[in-house]
Amino acid sequence: MTTGTPAPFTAADYKARMDRAARSAADAGLAGVLVAPGPDLVWLTGYHVPADTERLTVLVLAAGREPTLVVPTLEAPDAAAAPGADAMTLRDWTDGTDPYGVTAPLLETTGRFGVSDNAWAMHLLGLQRTLPDSSYVSLTEALPMLRAVKDAAELERLAAAGAAADATYEEIRRVPFAGRRENEIARELAHLLRQFGHSQVDFTVVGSGPNGANPHHEASDRIIEEGDMVVLDFGGLRHGYGSDTTRTVHVGEPTAEEQRVHDVVREAQTAACEAVRPGIACQDVDRVARKVITDAGYGQYFIHRTGHGIGVTTHEPPYMIEGEEQPLVPGMCFSVEPGIYLPGRFGVRVEDIVTVTEDGGRRLNATARDMAIVG
Amino acid sequence: MTTGTPAPFTAADYKARMDRAARSAADAGLAGVLVAPGPDLVWLTGYHVPADTERLTVLVLAAGREPTLVVPTLEAPDAAAAPGADAMTLRDWTDGTDPYGVTAPLLETTGRFGVSDNAWAMHLLGLQRTLPDSSYVSLTEALPMLRAVKDAAELERLAAAGAAADATYEEIRRVPFAGRRENEIARELAHLLRQFGHSQVDFTVVGSGPNGANPHHEASDRIIEEGDMVVLDFGGLRHGYGSDTTRTVHVGEPTAEEQRVHDVVREAQTAACEAVRPGIACQDVDRVARKVITDAGYGQYFIHRTGHGIGVTTHEPPYMIEGEEQPLVPGMCFSVEPGIYLPGRFGVRVEDIVTVTEDGGRRLNATARDMAIVG
Repeated sequence: MTTGTPAPFTAADYKARMDRAARSAADAGLAGVLVAPGPDLVWLTGYHVPADTERLTVLVLAAGREPTLVVPTLEAPDAAAAPGADAMTLRDWTDGTDPYGVTAPLLETTGRFGVSDNAWAMHLLGLQRTLPDSSYVSLTEALPMLRAVKDAAELERLAAAGAAADATYEEIRRVPFAGRRENEIARELAHLLRQFGHSQVDFTVVGSGPNGANPHHEASDRIIEEGDMVVLDFGGLRHGYGSDTTRTVHVGEPTAEEQRVHDVVREAQTAACEAVRPGIACQDVDRVARKVITDAGYGQYFIHRTGHGIGVTTHEPPYMIEGEEQPLVPGMCFSVEPGIYLPGRFGVRVEDIVTVTEDGGRRLNATARDMAIVG
Repeated sequence: MTTGTPAPFTAADYKARMDRAARSAADAGLAGVLVAPGPDLVWLTGYHVPADTERLTVLVLAAGREPTLVVPTLEAPDAAAAPGADAMTLRDWTDGTDPYGVTAPLLETTGRFGVSDNAWAMHLLGLQRTLPDSSYVSLTEALPMLRAVKDAAELERLAAAGAAADATYEEIRRVPFAGRRENEIARELAHLLRQFGHSQVDFTVVGSGPNGANPHHEASDRIIEEGDMVVLDFGGLRHGYGSDTTRTVHVGEPTAEEQRVHDVVREAQTAACEAVRPGIACQDVDRVARKVITDAGYGQYFIHRTGHGIGVTTHEPPYMIEGEEQPLVPGMCFSVEPGIYLPGRFGVRVEDIVTVTEDGGRRLNATARDMAIVG
């Protein structure tokens, strides 16, 4: 697996991202972009707010204007220390003053602005009240591609995170499962992810037997038994970029039906990964996976979309879902993770991160996708 | 300190809170309340979403109607297992369908709704688009008191969390400081909070020397030296309720000026705590503290409000800030934490949680507030 610490992003890198965002906004007919604390802000400036509170922090980007970060006075020293600070102006506001009054002069009064999906509703309402002729649209709707296309340095980090997740799987598939609680295996997954360089663990799903049939089950104190199917879905951030992989293993020999369901999911996952190439729509990736599962008679048990993007978060646009007509572009990275969930019985999911290349797709996870037999 | 596990809240407790919220909304002229994942939802239903993602989860409350929780289908099993599930109806929506279309029929089309401060802007925009004649106001603005007045069971949890934070301080003031990094002390604070029953550590500020002059500094690899003032501000959640306390200690003997600044802050904190009683405005608590500091000539160095509420979060309304005319009500709990920050030199802050009683205020922290001399 790839190891070592990548070179940090520089103020010039962040400036390039801010310029790109401002240009994309102008191209989309927007007067600018309002970026809230969270992944958008981290990606554009490297700034992690000390805490995401009710105090307004917002980056205002507009083509041809200096990027400006509005921050609470008491967090101004933190903002000034951000890696991208040299590429923007800070404008601080003090407790007791009106933060929207500080922000409004930076905005066109009748402009339409893209706003981070996760900006607080409270702040959006504050701006709508202060600038009643302005209008807003979520960044995912207005600029779904804002963070979706990764550059070489980002791809390197995503590949390294994927390799670390693979190393985690290679270790976990060798530990005993029967007679142990899901929670214990989940803790081991978290420990391994950190051991292989993750600074943040986002999820460690261990769904054994009937628990595997809830795709968002995390892990419980259920004791895993001989004969259980076990869904293992884990990931987090390593050097600021995400991993997310799923393998479904079996304690002892599977039944013919269990093997059949796993085969169908794996076939669907393979077909969807092989379909990835520039120009096809996101929904086509979903359709390819769904067709395999539907044709096998399990369509009603595939109850979620096929995938989601990954980058500075483990869950972001683009989404591989019916209705998403966004064409794939080289540099996009996303999960391909079809599943079948038989309520009260068991579930199967297989997931890799895939990046779009110039002429196809490339998996960033490389462990065997067959149903490993564990002890 | 108080120990033991409190009795869990029941569906009846959650139903009472939901009823109170719906009635308060009606009294405030609102058609209802829209509650997003986060502290409001935890308080009203006991439901912690598996992850706060772009998938819409929203609790709709309106007087005279059954509380309804809109959830993604794949999280419906989690929602159904929430402690307050029996007090509400679940309405699920599947990936690929329009979640706002599922929510809109639950709302009056021309209604005005309170919405959780931290609801995603994306979801607010989705509702505004689906119901163009509806309007919205943040819950903090519309119903600032929604979670502010704590009942006896909540006060018991807050007192126990405060006692655990006090026990943490009693331990940390006895460890060596000189020659060790801020980060090491911060890790010990976190460890102690957990040892004394916290399930979540929200912050462990160790601001030594000039770092103490940034009130939101967390902790760095700066090595603490003989002669440093050190701000220690720490807290988190214990059995779901918050702690937050600050003491400022000194490594070795302080200078006359350091002692003077600490005396002023302590005097301000004492005066503000003693001013607490039902009926005075939140801003009066701020004014009392600020007057002491201003009269002593340090007004320009007190660069934040005097306090914030605490409950299922460590940072919530009511705010003790100029302009907040909300009268104090018995059962409210908030921090009283004036400070003086001399840029590039040092900072001092002293903080206790205070609850409003029938005829005054009662501190939930009991450790000595004088400047402890550490080694």
